[in-house]
Amino acid sequence: MGKIVFGVDVGGTSVKLGLFDEKGELKKKWSIPTRTEDEGANVLPDIAASIKETAEAEGYKKEDIIGVGIGLPGPVDSKGVIRKAVNLHWNRVFNVSEELSALLDGTKVVAGNDANVAALGEAWAGSGKGYENVVMVTLGTGIGGGVIIGGKIITGATGSAGEIGHIHISDELEEKCNCGNSGCLEQFASATGIVRLLEQELAASDEDSIMRREPHTAKDMWEAVKAGDALAIRVAEKFGKYLGTGLAIIASVVNPDIFIIGGGVSMSGDVIMPYITDNYKKHVFHACADAKFVRAVLGNDGGIYGACKLVLE
Amino acid sequence: MGKIVFGVDVGGTSVKLGLFDEKGELKKKWSIPTRTEDEGANVLPDIAASIKETAEAEGYKKEDIIGVGIGLPGPVDSKGVIRKAVNLHWNRVFNVSEELSALLDGTKVVAGNDANVAALGEAWAGSGKGYENVVMVTLGTGIGGGVIIGGKIITGATGSAGEIGHIHISDELEEKCNCGNSGCLEQFASATGIVRLLEQELAASDEDSIMRREPHTAKDMWEAVKAGDALAIRVAEKFGKYLGTGLAIIASVVNPDIFIIGGGVSMSGDVIMPYITDNYKKHVFHACADAKFVRAVLGNDGGIYGACKLVLE
Repeated sequence: MGKIVFGVDVGGTSVKLGLFDEKGELKKKWSIPTRTEDEGANVLPDIAASIKETAEAEGYKKEDIIGVGIGLPGPVDSKGVIRKAVNLHWNRVFNVSEELSALLDGTKVVAGNDANVAALGEAWAGSGKGYENVVMVTLGTGIGGGVIIGGKIITGATGSAGEIGHIHISDELEEKCNCGNSGCLEQFASATGIVRLLEQELAASDEDSIMRREPHTAKDMWEAVKAGDALAIRVAEKFGKYLGTGLAIIASVVNPDIFIIGGGVSMSGDVIMPYITDNYKKHVFHACADAKFVRAVLGNDGGIYGACKLVLE
Repeated sequence: MGKIVFGVDVGGTSVKLGLFDEKGELKKKWSIPTRTEDEGANVLPDIAASIKETAEAEGYKKEDIIGVGIGLPGPVDSKGVIRKAVNLHWNRVFNVSEELSALLDGTKVVAGNDANVAALGEAWAGSGKGYENVVMVTLGTGIGGGVIIGGKIITGATGSAGEIGHIHISDELEEKCNCGNSGCLEQFASATGIVRLLEQELAASDEDSIMRREPHTAKDMWEAVKAGDALAIRVAEKFGKYLGTGLAIIASVVNPDIFIIGGGVSMSGDVIMPYITDNYKKHVFHACADAKFVRAVLGNDGGIYGACKLVLE
């Protein structure tokens, strides 16, 4: 029957799992709830039980499993040590790879940060396929990211490489980011950041706008941009200024072939792209000007693909 | 007699060369002038002749040479293609590795950007020794840099990774940088940038300062800081704000274990360091706060060491 790999993407409410063949083809995917009670003590045992159960149901033995890759919502270093995962209620520093491997009777486990792992998935099997130097930016409630060079995640000293959302992009905002600093990129260009920019713009004048009649979500804001709403377009320009400048800065550090824009905000479609690229071109170092910009294509499956690739690389 | 490696560091006025043994120990170093006339047509032939001559004089045959590493003042991609090198009067796009190799009768040649190669040298044999994730910043007339992960240079799509001097750090400066943009980090934190900040500060008031009696060089400015000159200290604080913020941003992208500060400005001594690190800590993502900061130790030899390592890796 061939050998298999499991890819696991752990979120605060559910865990996505995928069963892949040894060539990295997705054969089956499913999810289980994330039980965060008791400081998240059940999270890893639940995952191990689900993997064992599925392997058995599908007719695989332990020795058929090449390994299990797992993406987690927290900084994970290159050895698999996680320092903190607020969304899982984990407050201890421990080696996730070793602990999950023990629960799986010694099966190889490779762990990474969820945003980095999703970036690896897109770089490998999604819109970054074929490119050597890839940066992915995930625009959701916050901003996550990942830097993939030659098919490998740049992890950094403490697993915090690719924390693109926490680039300091403005001295003008006093309000604190979740990270404790202020002026972080995610305070302007995440879904939450877009809502902040929108509310500032609405408060600044009495100008009529579709947005005075719509809920103040990032999705509605982009719909208003598509409809030609002047106020919404000004918000889009501000979003683009912050994000385009941030990505231009990143280009001077790692000079990617391609930027992949993912996460909920990217689901609003190609309408978001020129606001990013026009501003990128304004500030980027000339030799980085030709980087490609695309939207992610794997959606919520990026994490399990990347987790599979952690094992196959 | 063992095998050898040549490390070459090409500058606009002179070419530094080093002969290393196969363990990377520097056995001999020398330099030759850079002849930039005729669109720099002599640069590579002069280097090849000097290498052949030295190998012969030291009693080595062609087959004793493992390879030649070379750092060049321009963007060099991972295949050895250089796009432009203004200081060498090179205006054509060509493969430096292949051309120098042909001049050396087929000896292996590996080429890289000079700032990246110097960073590799410091990471390997200088103050970055033993660290996995290293960022070096060279503060000279401009600002160069290099990102070294696991002993290898991050080159990027067009050889422009590590172009740290061209991070967009301020919207407030209209004056153009050499690169054509404005608000680049090197306009504030290079030796030239420090002089700009100093002259702004001197023009802003009649306040007495040592700097009103000294030449306006970065070196004199740091001497005045050591002497406790209030105006010079304000300039140092501005320098630190821009550079510290820039390095904090870089930390969110690649999360280094260590930052190495090199170049002429770093020769002013440890006086420069707290201005950088205090500002770094203000803006850095918490998980990157413990990065080490050190000054470079190899000085002008960083380039030949890094060039040697290009071959040995």
